[in-house]
Amino acid sequence: MAGADGQGDGYRYERGREKARDAARVETFSDGVFGVVLTVMAVELLQSGPAREGGRELPDALAHAWPSYLAFVITFAIAGQVWLAHHNLWRYVVRVDQMLLVLNLLVLLFIATIPFTADLLSDNLRGGATEQRLTAALYLGTVLGESLFVNLSWWWARRRGLLNPALDPRLARAVARRILLKPFLYLLAFAVVFVDPILSLCAYLLLVAFYLVGGPGDLRPSADRSAA
Amino acid sequence: MAGADGQGDGYRYERGREKARDAARVETFSDGVFGVVLTVMAVELLQSGPAREGGRELPDALAHAWPSYLAFVITFAIAGQVWLAHHNLWRYVVRVDQMLLVLNLLVLLFIATIPFTADLLSDNLRGGATEQRLTAALYLGTVLGESLFVNLSWWWARRRGLLNPALDPRLARAVARRILLKPFLYLLAFAVVFVDPILSLCAYLLLVAFYLVGGPGDLRPSADRSAA
Amino acid sequence: MAGADGQGDGYRYERGREKARDAARVETFSDGVFGVVLTVMAVELLQSGPAREGGRELPDALAHAWPSYLAFVITFAIAGQVWLAHHNLWRYVVRVDQMLLVLNLLVLLFIATIPFTADLLSDNLRGGATEQRLTAALYLGTVLGESLFVNLSWWWARRRGLLNPALDPRLARAVARRILLKPFLYLLAFAVVFVDPILSLCAYLLLVAFYLVGGPGDLRPSADRSAA
Amino acid sequence: MAGADGQGDGYRYERGREKARDAARVETFSDGVFGVVLTVMAVELLQSGPAREGGRELPDALAHAWPSYLAFVITFAIAGQVWLAHHNLWRYVVRVDQMLLVLNLLVLLFIATIPFTADLLSDNLRGGATEQRLTAALYLGTVLGESLFVNLSWWWARRRGLLNPALDPRLARAVARRILLKPFLYLLAFAVVFVDPILSLCAYLLLVAFYLVGGPGDLRPSADRSAA
Repeated sequence: MAGADGQGDGYRYERGREKARDAARVETFSDGVFGVVLTVMAVELLQSGPAREGGRELPDALAHAWPSYLAFVITFAIAGQVWLAHHNLWRYVVRVDQMLLVLNLLVLLFIATIPFTADLLSDNLRGGATEQRLTAALYLGTVLGESLFVNLSWWWARRRGLLNPALDPRLARAVARRILLKPFLYLLAFAVVFVDPILSLCAYLLLVAFYLVGGPGDLRPSADRSAA
Repeated sequence: MAGADGQGDGYRYERGREKARDAARVETFSDGVFGVVLTVMAVELLQSGPAREGGRELPDALAHAWPSYLAFVITFAIAGQVWLAHHNLWRYVVRVDQMLLVLNLLVLLFIATIPFTADLLSDNLRGGATEQRLTAALYLGTVLGESLFVNLSWWWARRRGLLNPALDPRLARAVARRILLKPFLYLLAFAVVFVDPILSLCAYLLLVAFYLVGGPGDLRPSADRSAA
Repeated sequence: MAGADGQGDGYRYERGREKARDAARVETFSDGVFGVVLTVMAVELLQSGPAREGGRELPDALAHAWPSYLAFVITFAIAGQVWLAHHNLWRYVVRVDQMLLVLNLLVLLFIATIPFTADLLSDNLRGGATEQRLTAALYLGTVLGESLFVNLSWWWARRRGLLNPALDPRLARAVARRILLKPFLYLLAFAVVFVDPILSLCAYLLLVAFYLVGGPGDLRPSADRSAA
Repeated sequence: MAGADGQGDGYRYERGREKARDAARVETFSDGVFGVVLTVMAVELLQSGPAREGGRELPDALAHAWPSYLAFVITFAIAGQVWLAHHNLWRYVVRVDQMLLVLNLLVLLFIATIPFTADLLSDNLRGGATEQRLTAALYLGTVLGESLFVNLSWWWARRRGLLNPALDPRLARAVARRILLKPFLYLLAFAVVFVDPILSLCAYLLLVAFYLVGGPGDLRPSADRSAA
């Protein structure tokens, strides 16, 4: 049923350039959520931060609040890296369908939860082993959920032919393998919590750094140069 | 008075591609509001959440705060579904007028209120029957208001010829019928509160799921596939 | 010095389509600020609202908090109307310069202050006459500041030839007269505070309604219809 | 390896117009963060502002809270000026690579921290000399970090050929020199804290004004006029 793009049921509706606008709007909307998540932790610093602590001297209060800063930096790093991955994956998406939008909403649901679980985690870094492991597990759940739906989004986009037809299928597979690796690395970073909770957080940051250096599907500095 | 697009009163002003930009800007602006609404509940979790509760043990405090999580998930589900519907409807809008913008602002007014009424509702899930019904009724008011102005927007856009002329009028009518059904389903989900308030919330989630599977006017996976 | 578009100083740089992108980015950025302002009051309801009031019964607490709802609705109405006006004015802008961006930032500065002064005003509706007049004057200051820089933006854009050349100069003048009227109407609405503060708020809402019905420079339903 | 735009590793993927969309998405996302930062201080005013102070008379409470207003205005001025600079620089960017995105995220990390450090600074304007200098140094750190990564972004974009090829290399160098000057001016404004902390804040505002009047790389009113 060629031409019935956008709906079935026998309705006619020819669409042309709206496709690109569809994908662009999903990006704009997602960027709104990412933008708020990236700045929420700073608002949190502002509102419950050291400036509000009564009894201490300022230098002490500032130093004492280091887990808040750590939570801010880690949330920013994780959410920033997921934004980058989102940006890199959606560059290849030229059409969207209802299911892809729903999967994207589920990615955003877990992204929006990161500040909460990151804050819980940082609040309990000085707590007992039970608190540390419980909050680390909750944090893991958030990033695993995000990772799961990113993987499902890509799998769906590949299966339904929503990607740019000019995209090399081998590259699409390489991207799929690379993002499939991520939940396992998250699990590894979580496991370190049984050794030391602060080491575990550093492992998450290492993981982010690993994905920032680039790989299949990322915008490559060197390739861009050689193409110039 | 052909050519006097955008104003009457005898002023000349030829407009071409600005029309599409008009509609795109409304989407961008609406997406900003949706994005904040989707993340606001997470900020709320962060600020008044279990991490701030003093006297309890952490696992207890976390478990005790389940209504906050429920409010977060339901707000995200409702607002996410409305975003999806907004996205699907606005794909067909190619021109805007003052009234459509005002109707869209009124949709956003009710969207922005959802976190507040959802939070009220979740706070009173463990309260008496009066509190449960009052807060459920307030919540219903918010989603009914949103639904009313979505229906008015579509009706206005159809009546004033603001939709893509290539859109099948039968499809436009099918979309109108489908979104007209929504307030009645909201009322049904509300009525369940007299049986059990938690069941009522689950009914809202069911309703969201029903609209997510797709129907006339939605981006259809199968249609997109057959067109490929 | 033809062709030296975007800078002087003897540097060569040919620019083509970036102009439209420039104006579009200003709109996107402004929409981000508007979106946050529109939802901020809802967050405020959520955080200091009736749900948090301890000693009262819920129906009482909800009824007692009516000034918060009023502040929410008025902020939404004012900011929504300014967004609409911004949307209508920027439709005609095809180029931007540094000064226009600065003037736009100053508009946004006052827009961002509206929630604060609206909240102050609503908090003092039940206070003494001094509090009522002081907070009403502060609120007036915010909307006058916004109005001033909207007027300056339009004046600058007209004077520097940043508007669409196809725009009828008589229309540009009519728009200028119409937005120049606004600060005087704001002053009128403020003066009512000496009679009754709640009446004064209603006068602001009336003023918003007056600008929503449309006039020169607005998207006109009838014109759009006749052009169809 | 011509044509392998966007990745190396031997995958083929021809890209055309996506490049411009890439750069546009980075702007949209950054604008989301800027928009939240610009309004966050207003939310802060709302939530911990004079309206919440118990024991004082309202006029007193409002007057006493002047450091909060100062922090709001300075944050708005600094973040607004950085937005303007970001806008001016990104006008010339036509391609992005992974590293440029990471550098841009790091700019945003420091931008998101400005409200926190500005608030700390304003809270301690009436404190002792230690508090004043410590908070002024933290504030300096934030703006220096932002400035550092803006400089690195521009240097990278020039070195990797990500700028518009039509851009005069002399202009690119002039822009580089101008933004390199900024951290030194920040240091100067900081040094004034040893004389008087309020004078130091005024020096920051002066610095913002200096960058607002325009220079190489900025949108120039006069040039735009002469080109018309």
